[in-house]
Amino acid sequence: MSGIDFKKIGLVGAGLIGGSIAARLARTLPDTVLLLHDASPGNAAYVAERHPRGKRVSGIDALAACDAIFVATPVATIAEQVVALLAQPGSRALVIDTGSAKQAIIAAVAASGADAGRFVPGHPLAGGISAGPGRASGDIVTTRPFVLTPTERTDPDALAHAKTLLEWLGAEVVEMAPDAHDRLLALGSHLPHLIAYALAGLGTEEPGDLLPASYRGIAAFAGSDAQMWSDIFRANTAELKSVLADFKKRLDLIAAMADEPVPGILLETLSDAKARVDALENEE
Amino acid sequence: MSGIDFKKIGLVGAGLIGGSIAARLARTLPDTVLLLHDASPGNAAYVAERHPRGKRVSGIDALAACDAIFVATPVATIAEQVVALLAQPGSRALVIDTGSAKQAIIAAVAASGADAGRFVPGHPLAGGISAGPGRASGDIVTTRPFVLTPTERTDPDALAHAKTLLEWLGAEVVEMAPDAHDRLLALGSHLPHLIAYALAGLGTEEPGDLLPASYRGIAAFAGSDAQMWSDIFRANTAELKSVLADFKKRLDLIAAMADEPVPGILLETLSDAKARVDALENEE
Repeated sequence: MSGIDFKKIGLVGAGLIGGSIAARLARTLPDTVLLLHDASPGNAAYVAERHPRGKRVSGIDALAACDAIFVATPVATIAEQVVALLAQPGSRALVIDTGSAKQAIIAAVAASGADAGRFVPGHPLAGGISAGPGRASGDIVTTRPFVLTPTERTDPDALAHAKTLLEWLGAEVVEMAPDAHDRLLALGSHLPHLIAYALAGLGTEEPGDLLPASYRGIAAFAGSDAQMWSDIFRANTAELKSVLADFKKRLDLIAAMADEPVPGILLETLSDAKARVDALENEE
Repeated sequence: MSGIDFKKIGLVGAGLIGGSIAARLARTLPDTVLLLHDASPGNAAYVAERHPRGKRVSGIDALAACDAIFVATPVATIAEQVVALLAQPGSRALVIDTGSAKQAIIAAVAASGADAGRFVPGHPLAGGISAGPGRASGDIVTTRPFVLTPTERTDPDALAHAKTLLEWLGAEVVEMAPDAHDRLLALGSHLPHLIAYALAGLGTEEPGDLLPASYRGIAAFAGSDAQMWSDIFRANTAELKSVLADFKKRLDLIAAMADEPVPGILLETLSDAKARVDALENEE
């Protein structure tokens, strides 16, 4: 296990999230060496240039001596990266991932037989429609909670060090069970994107300029990276289907209320939903 | 039938849409008298003050001598207002409404036995989350198409004069059959709002600050006026239920693809939706 002193940090995956973590490292730990690997050397070089001690490396071998390593690759490849990092001979690096579906990653790491004590599953509740490091920003790390989902395999020191490092970066750390995280994200992110993709697939014969703002505003979330969302839907399918069933019931319930002879029950239901949304907006 | 010269215009309903029409009248027809009636005298007075010849009136009796009258009240009350205006002795006013569901309004006007030749059903494809005249803006009239849905009862001169008046106001006029309009709005506006109300009704036990941006962005449309949306859902229920059935099929289809052993079909479907959204955004 690495000490609390982070002299050398690794980053695997220099996209929107990886680039945003690097931006905060540049600000708060500028003397720490940052080694970056990305399947796209251009992404790694782009992010490396924006850190005073950033350096692009080819492959993960160069990361064995790091004190901590962030894995911010696409969800479908995170587990294999984490397993490979944990298997590096002599490495004592803390390994923190940023994937949007935790149970599938945790299960794949466990199935590999890797000693997962140094692995702290994580997820910054952030992101956006863009992909790649071009829109990366330290704000993505500091303005939204960074969830950690330790398991019974997680070394308590590793968890404590991960929290310390993330707090140094300016993140608000929230601990949550992996299944609670996956249900929260299924409702709060995966279902909303599924809604957007489904809505954008309807009415494709309508002239675009006749489609009102609410259609455009919701369908816009389908402008996100298709590969990324294919991976996420496939990684969290069970929770997504469960919340989808609840959502369809709720759609049917409200539509049925519109057919009731008296309007009171529909109005009350819409008013309750509006009160919820107004409260959410006042919290921001 | 009034002549093409609009000396006196009436407005019933001084909310977001009525206030926006008045703002354009103030700009493009400042010498025309504008008489305003609203169930809320404050709304009518607020909008009247913003037109050089605007005047609040109590009730529709004062509108009998108008050349044209806009009816921009809530959807549930439009038909009765239109019927009452058409029944005014001696009135030759062109009557244009702005309701978001056309078939129900047209059917109710027809059922009243009114002579509907002077009635031109219309709908500006605009609006927003706010209600009331405070956020009214001429841009709402000029930046989005203003749909007219004439029927076989509509006097061709009335239709021509309505088009002329709206074009004077700076609107882009689009003609459409009432059922085509209602299907378009069910998909493009009513379903998106139903989605928002349903989503906002789920996960109410989750702490708000943990809900990601996509949930908040979609649920935000449920911040719209509950009474207005209750009326709209009740006025266009059949078309809404029809497009809801299509939408649920599409949700299930994409969710099922996430369970397929190979990812290709899901990725292709999401990519097609993304291409559609990107094309919509480039059109703007």
